[in-house]
Amino acid sequence: MTEVTVRAPATVSNVVVGFDCLGFALELPFDEVTVRIIDESRVRIIHHDDFDLPTEPEQNVAGVALSALIKTAELTHGFEVEITKNIMPGSGVGSSSASSCGAVFAANQLIGDRFTKHDLTELAMLGEQLASGSRHADNAAPCIYGGFVLVRSTDPLDITEIEHPPLWATVIHPQIEVKTSESRAILPSQVPLKDAVRNWSNLAAFVTALSSGDYDLMARSMEDFIVEPVRQTLIPKYEEVKAACLEAGAIGGGISGSGPSMFMLSDNINTADEVADAMESVFSNSEIERNVYVSAISRDGVTIM
Amino acid sequence: MTEVTVRAPATVSNVVVGFDCLGFALELPFDEVTVRIIDESRVRIIHHDDFDLPTEPEQNVAGVALSALIKTAELTHGFEVEITKNIMPGSGVGSSSASSCGAVFAANQLIGDRFTKHDLTELAMLGEQLASGSRHADNAAPCIYGGFVLVRSTDPLDITEIEHPPLWATVIHPQIEVKTSESRAILPSQVPLKDAVRNWSNLAAFVTALSSGDYDLMARSMEDFIVEPVRQTLIPKYEEVKAACLEAGAIGGGISGSGPSMFMLSDNINTADEVADAMESVFSNSEIERNVYVSAISRDGVTIM
Repeated sequence: MTEVTVRAPATVSNVVVGFDCLGFALELPFDEVTVRIIDESRVRIIHHDDFDLPTEPEQNVAGVALSALIKTAELTHGFEVEITKNIMPGSGVGSSSASSCGAVFAANQLIGDRFTKHDLTELAMLGEQLASGSRHADNAAPCIYGGFVLVRSTDPLDITEIEHPPLWATVIHPQIEVKTSESRAILPSQVPLKDAVRNWSNLAAFVTALSSGDYDLMARSMEDFIVEPVRQTLIPKYEEVKAACLEAGAIGGGISGSGPSMFMLSDNINTADEVADAMESVFSNSEIERNVYVSAISRDGVTIM
Repeated sequence: MTEVTVRAPATVSNVVVGFDCLGFALELPFDEVTVRIIDESRVRIIHHDDFDLPTEPEQNVAGVALSALIKTAELTHGFEVEITKNIMPGSGVGSSSASSCGAVFAANQLIGDRFTKHDLTELAMLGEQLASGSRHADNAAPCIYGGFVLVRSTDPLDITEIEHPPLWATVIHPQIEVKTSESRAILPSQVPLKDAVRNWSNLAAFVTALSSGDYDLMARSMEDFIVEPVRQTLIPKYEEVKAACLEAGAIGGGISGSGPSMFMLSDNINTADEVADAMESVFSNSEIERNVYVSAISRDGVTIM
């Protein structure tokens, strides 16, 4: 095998109560990533999109991850990677991690599956560091593993998969620009201990509810007292969208990653569709372009096409 | 039935990573609480101990809880409560909640089991409020429910029982006085967001590890960056005890409640016994009086004797 194509899914990080430690993978949207072995010991990048992403390997998220893989595996050959990007960069649903995870996952297939999922996540995190300046894994880990993933620590990397009941996500991407750096900069460096306690009580309840399949407890626990109150100011119609989605039957939801996308979880696909309608209706008189996705939770993360 | 005797166990709250939201119940030590119906509509309290606890119902943790039960259930009679106190007040293993939980649990038996565990916890919390000034449930809930209990919120009270694998606790109570008010007062009101994130990542990992029975993940996640670094200064030989216990094979542990007791968890009773020896050996040249307990986790909480 000298060529393989994978689908690398979008991911939702933070998940309201798990800032910087929790994420899950979607079925849709996904990037198509084809990797082929080339004789030269380098990485060549081809993009099929209008996003004007850099193609120099050291400036490209897939490029830095693949270069590290080549070095770690002591390969004498290189890779060409061709990415059909369906996940818009800057949308807040793990566009960069889909590129880097897809690339290293595919390359690993071509070299006889030498790396574990844990290894591949570490390689993909180099792409995340390039994209956002921080070595985070709450998109890369769910992209590689699928499902809900808890990143207890990034150094050393400590990943735990969390069981979950049937869930569907509805995601709206209002096409405004929110820079990750800006959405980081507005966060307070100090927070009230009492708010931290409320947040960690909710997070503990939320992961317990996922494991036990308790939708009611999930709904009660999806409230963040620290990050969302600050970041929602960057997102148009945030409170209206949230209220309309809960009214339509969503379990709960909020900002995806650092935004501007918002996500909502539902316990069945019909409700998830109605939540999509509710999101659209809030924006019906708006000139803001938007994409809306209804998706199951991806159980597998990156998969071979 | 006009009289019933229950055993009301000691409890460990906070559990290192679950400050103000997590607790578990021990088999040992426990208080014996006998409640009997009396004709007068009042509460009469008899203590069998040397702790000089108040016996006026409105000054006594069992008294306020029972008085509230009488009022809520619109009883025309009252109760006499006789408490053989084995859990030393101020030891940090839920002495006050054993009294109040034991009393309301026993009284509820005498009136035909009219209250749920949730109701009984709320009644017992009135005793906690009297004892510590804060309406907390992270001792009362595990005392009533048994096992590991997460208190997501106290207002409204939201309690979730968490599955756990076989576990034994070793508890040492160095008999020094640490006032709950003092150990509250030294906590910072603001904490770094990055430390809060580390704490909640660990808490999420810890409850997931409990549910899935992953002892290694429990061990990795039992680290608190906010409360223990401050409170350990109030506890003699804290770091020495911790190091000796981990060396002896404990999974992890730290301060029980607001101290001065320390607890350690082990995955088998032999290790828990060795941990007890390790605790004793640290204090062997000390003049500080101490009690050491090795106990299984109580699956049932308060039980009829």
